[in-house]
Amino acid sequence: MTRRIDDLEEELRVRVLHMGALAEQMVRSAVSGLFERSLISAGHVAAMEEQVNALHVEIDDRCLKLIALHQPAGPDLRLILAVSRINADLERIGDQAVNISESTQIMLTRDAKFRELFEVPRMAELAGGMLRDALEAFARRDTDLARQVLHRDEEEDHLKGHVFRELVHLMLADPAAIQGGLGLILIARNLERVADHATNVAEDVIFMVLGRDIRHHAGDVIA
Amino acid sequence: MTRRIDDLEEELRVRVLHMGALAEQMVRSAVSGLFERSLISAGHVAAMEEQVNALHVEIDDRCLKLIALHQPAGPDLRLILAVSRINADLERIGDQAVNISESTQIMLTRDAKFRELFEVPRMAELAGGMLRDALEAFARRDTDLARQVLHRDEEEDHLKGHVFRELVHLMLADPAAIQGGLGLILIARNLERVADHATNVAEDVIFMVLGRDIRHHAGDVIA
Repeated sequence: MTRRIDDLEEELRVRVLHMGALAEQMVRSAVSGLFERSLISAGHVAAMEEQVNALHVEIDDRCLKLIALHQPAGPDLRLILAVSRINADLERIGDQAVNISESTQIMLTRDAKFRELFEVPRMAELAGGMLRDALEAFARRDTDLARQVLHRDEEEDHLKGHVFRELVHLMLADPAAIQGGLGLILIARNLERVADHATNVAEDVIFMVLGRDIRHHAGDVIA
Repeated sequence: MTRRIDDLEEELRVRVLHMGALAEQMVRSAVSGLFERSLISAGHVAAMEEQVNALHVEIDDRCLKLIALHQPAGPDLRLILAVSRINADLERIGDQAVNISESTQIMLTRDAKFRELFEVPRMAELAGGMLRDALEAFARRDTDLARQVLHRDEEEDHLKGHVFRELVHLMLADPAAIQGGLGLILIARNLERVADHATNVAEDVIFMVLGRDIRHHAGDVIA
């Protein structure tokens, strides 16, 4: 392995972590718009999406060139393939943040009734923490931290189920809450998807470091 | 390029097309459960999901080995990278079919009121057709057909917006329709996601054949 591929891999890592920080910030901005009932963050989210989309294309191009020119194998190749998957997940996390922001805008501009946010802030905190830790696990090649992320996905699913049930009850009891309730249900689902993507990133870290593909039977390994 | 890599690539193509046919069948089964108000298809969808998940892992493993052992560049490398992205999209299409099937089960077992399906059957037909054509474009390396898929994504988004508005009106007018309406809204969103993934597959076909990454600014190229 030449010094040159090391440098290129380091650049790749830095770019992915930059993209990850942007995706994390997008989710944070989107949910803060909801919590503060403010439309201001929507512009920030949209601006960051453009950066994330540009990085999505750039990072895949770097991966292609690294493979084509340096013919990596073993850990180098696993790093590159993990990065290309993480890249796709981060781009989709950005999309989820845009969806959250759009639902919030609709809720605010239509003056939808939503006094209470139920467990949505908790879902946002959990999903945000999972993403942060998955990226940290990637940065440090820390499979223990990656496994901790996997363990938390179930709690997010559980919270989402809870939010759905509460909101359906609310909507049944108070038709004026239908629009707001629907908006929150969609946002809860977006946050669950953020947690799923963070889980994918954590699985890719384990693949990158240990060479083991634990997707679809994660329970076998993380028990 | 040796004959050996050709054979391996052909095997890879066959596996992906097999997975694609399964994902397509999953969506078809899931929506037929909804249209026929039948719980029978849920078991088929679940059984096919296991196969799709196994293929997801297998195909990524084949891609890794192909790169590590054959050090492809140019069109060979683009094929492999396109396959690994298409693989991820097909797996997610399977997830969407599972979600559709689960929402249908909830709607049927809770006896949710849903007399009308609005434009959901049209959405299912369109998304299914996009997926079929994206896979056909992959099989034939047909960039014209891939571009036709890209053009249809906007119609799916438009239909989803329409379904959302109609269902919110219905729910506001008739609280007894809240549960059924919510189920259909979630299913409409799942179908929109299937169309998005089909669009991704079509973009990957263009990347594979022409070496051009048109994601995030597809309009520049498909105009």
